Order: sequence, then C-alpha cells, then structure tokens
Amino acid sequence: MNRTRHKKKIMKKPNRPTILITNDDSVYSKGICELIKIAREFGDVVVVAPDRVRSGMSRAITHAEPMRLNMLHKEDGFVVYSSSGTPVDCVKLAFFALFKEKRPELLLSGINHGSNASVNAVYSATVGAAIEGCVNNVPSVALSLCDHDENADFSYILPVVKSIIEKTLNNPLPYATYLNVNFPTGKLDGVKVCRQADARWSEEYDQKVSDYGDVSYLLAGYFDDREPQSQDTDEWALTHQCASIVPSKVDMTNYECLSQLKDLYGTI
Amino acid sequence: MNRTRHKKKIMKKPNRPTILITNDDSVYSKGICELIKIAREFGDVVVVAPDRVRSGMSRAITHAEPMRLNMLHKEDGFVVYSSSGTPVDCVKLAFFALFKEKRPELLLSGINHGSNASVNAVYSATVGAAIEGCVNNVPSVALSLCDHDENADFSYILPVVKSIIEKTLNNPLPYATYLNVNFPTGKLDGVKVCRQADARWSEEYDQKVSDYGDVSYLLAGYFDDREPQSQDTDEWALTHQCASIVPSKVDMTNYECLSQLKDLYGTI
Repeated sequence: MNRTRHKKKIMKKPNRPTILITNDDSVYSKGICELIKIAREFGDVVVVAPDRVRSGMSRAITHAEPMRLNMLHKEDGFVVYSSSGTPVDCVKLAFFALFKEKRPELLLSGINHGSNASVNAVYSATVGAAIEGCVNNVPSVALSLCDHDENADFSYILPVVKSIIEKTLNNPLPYATYLNVNFPTGKLDGVKVCRQADARWSEEYDQKVSDYGDVSYLLAGYFDDREPQSQDTDEWALTHQCASIVPSKVDMTNYECLSQLKDLYGTI
Repeated sequence: MNRTRHKKKIMKKPNRPTILITNDDSVYSKGICELIKIAREFGDVVVVAPDRVRSGMSRAITHAEPMRLNMLHKEDGFVVYSSSGTPVDCVKLAFFALFKEKRPELLLSGINHGSNASVNAVYSATVGAAIEGCVNNVPSVALSLCDHDENADFSYILPVVKSIIEKTLNNPLPYATYLNVNFPTGKLDGVKVCRQADARWSEEYDQKVSDYGDVSYLLAGYFDDREPQSQDTDEWALTHQCASIVPSKVDMTNYECLSQLKDLYGTI
C-alpha cells in the first residue's frame, strides 16, 4: 500500500492547475459529470456543488441558516463535495472554507441543462456561480447546453468545451469579467463571441384553485427575443447552431447615461 | 354608504399613476411601510411583497412549485398582496397575474434595511425586483438604507426619496436601465450619481460541530472595498454621508473586451 501511494505521489505532476467545478442542477446531474471528465484532463479537480436542484437561484446566498458541506469522494487530484447551499454558497464555501488563502486557477460552472443566454443569465445560478468566482478574481466560465433533458447529449460540444478550458487557462480574462457560454441543441456549426440579447419571459401563470378556494400560481410563459434580427447577439448565434460566448461584467453601472442622470438627480 | 362611496369616486383623480411596490424584507417591514406612505402621495399604490424575509435572494425565481398570492388590504387607490414567492416572483405575479396588459408607471423596491451598494447589488433581491421591472420596461428604482435595524430611522431620507419618485415619474429613464439608490446611516448631506464600487465580501464561516460530528457553516465575513480612494463610487458617496444613485443596466456584456476575445475564442 505504501509503495503504491508513494508511486502515485511521484507520478502526480506538480504544476497541474486546480479547477473548481460547480453547477445548479446538483452534483448528481449528467452535465456536471461530463464537465468533470474533461476538466480532469487539464488539472486537479475540486467539485463543490448543490445536493439538490437549485436552478433559477441566480446569485442567491444563504445567510441566516447554517449549511452542510459533505465530502462524497476523494482520490489523488479529485475531490467531490455536495452542499446544502446555493451555487454561490458553494463557490464561497470552496474559497473560504476549503481553499482558504489559495485560489483555484479556474472556475467552471455547469454544464447546465438548459439555456442561460440573454435574459436567462439574470435568473441563472450557473451564471451566479461564475459571477462569484469573478468577484474573487478567479477566471470563471459558465457553460450551458440549450437542452433541459436530464439525459441530454453533450458529446458534440465537448471538443469546444475543451478548447475553451485550454484557452482560459492559458490567457487571462479581462478584470472582473467572466464568460457566459451557451451551446445550441442538436449540432454545433461554430463559435461566436457576442453580446447578451435583449429579451424577456412573458409569463402566463397556471392558476390552480384548491377545494377550499385557495388560488396558487405556477410559473409558465414564453420566451420573447426582442431583437431576433440582430446578428451580434447570443440568441442569434444559438438559433444559427453556433455556441455563444458573452464576456460579462460584474459592474452593472450604465456609464453611458451617468452625465445625463447627474444633471437630473445630482441637483436634489 | 352609497353617497360616501360616490363622493370618494368623484374625488379620485383620474390620471394618477399606478405605483407597484415590493421589497425583500417582507410586507411587514418598516421600510416598505415608510415607502408606501410616501408613494401614496404620488399615485395609486399596489403592493406585492414577500410574506417573509427573502433578503439575499438576488434575482431568484420559483419555477418548480406553485406560489400563493393573498390580498391583505384593499381600499380606493391602495391594495396590498403578500406572496410566498421571491421578490422577482412578486414583480412577475404583479405584472402577469394582476395587471395583465396594463403596466404600472413606476416600480419601487424597498426601502431595504441594509446596504445594497457595490457588490451587495449582486446578491440583493431588492435590486433583483428592480431588474425584473426594468426587463419589463417599467421605470424601476431600488431603495436601501445602510441600517439593518428593524426599527431603523428613515425620517431624514424621506424628502430625498420623494424627490427621486417625482423626478422618475416625470422623466423617462434610459432604456433597460434602473436606479440602485442607497442612503447613508445617521444623516444625509447630499446626493451623488455615481458608479458601482469594486468590492467583495471576504467570508469567514462560523463552523459548528454537532454531537454527531456533523459540521455546518454559517456565513460571516467582512466587507472589502477595493478602491476606497475612488471618489466616483457608491461606497465613497455613502462613507461621505451622501445618497448614491447608480444607474444600472440589465445587459451584462463587457463591450470593451469583445474584439479582444473575438480574436481569442472566435477562432475555435
């Protein structure tokens, strides 16, 4: 046993990067398993992911109740934790309870089952986790496939996922900027670096009335791309079978209107 | 009775704007009550707010389970609902289950007990609700006081809150842009239109070990303003006893680095 252990230690490359992986579909989803397999080709992998589905949790944090962090698996260069927290909590726990002073060289969030392009990025916890990585100066990439099926086929996007990981490990991202990457359903014809489309969800709540007359509302609706003709958006890329890469900022300030609004509100 | 009702109807101004109010501290908090009182001076008020504290929920949505929407109060020009959903759910329910085709002239979110300046805006559901209003083309303002006390004194900020409401009702905000407004603790010396400061929370989890050896983690930490010398940020304004108004965008694209990243990732 000691010999084997010793051998393993010698064989381990000393300068392999550490890659933190999380998601919002839970540690048990297919998408995160596919991502783990690829990431292990590039470095040591630490997974901290939710113990249940936490999609639609955006950048939510758990601040009023304690969270659990359970180690599920450990071997040389690969450790997996699940947490009762949100995806942002998972990233915070990894940074501040596990890594402490050290930081991983890369954070990957996903691969999400379902689109996080355009306005979906606002509600997405896959994106939320990437934002938390970025706030802490770790190069961060959110990865999503536009297919909600829990057994979705990821095989045709994996070579591009590999290229994105390789390029992000070897080239620093701009300050306070993360990548929001989405892949189209069915086939992949190219990659577009583009902007977030202007879109919204037009909701149509399903109303249910109980035997006691209580009304409840279940979210339903349709997606409304407000600029389907614009060729520089993530939605355009995806509807034309291209992966979309949107470099995205933590800073939400609208600089273009600062002086106009200074005139209006600065005089109060 | 009929005469009184008739009188009330005649006295009601026909062109009063409708103002939607929500928050994340719950419909029962002091901050929302203060905001309601002021908003009723300007228009008819519809409140749809969480039935419990939902702070730190960011832009989270409830999509897998039904939500409740209960009318708590109704009189001419003033109606109050509570919802089991998140603040973003409250806004969606107001727009799509209550207002339907019509939209309010203004959305106010708050007044929050606690700062939502700089990186706090990322996690804030007060801000999340304003983003949802903005996505649906309703002029939206998030309002927060840097005081977590549930009995916080709001009196010294109310004249400025009034001015912001008046100006926002009378001047259109730039497209897809909302206001993130924060007020300093204790006294108010001015108003600054400014940008979001570069900051983060450095977390220090409180660890608890149960009698069975289970470890749990409770979020704790300290605020780290990375640019305390910059005079054009919201944090600078607040530490100098000024209200901060940050015009903020739904679009998170970092346009400045688009061409640089096209060279790098567009060739995959």
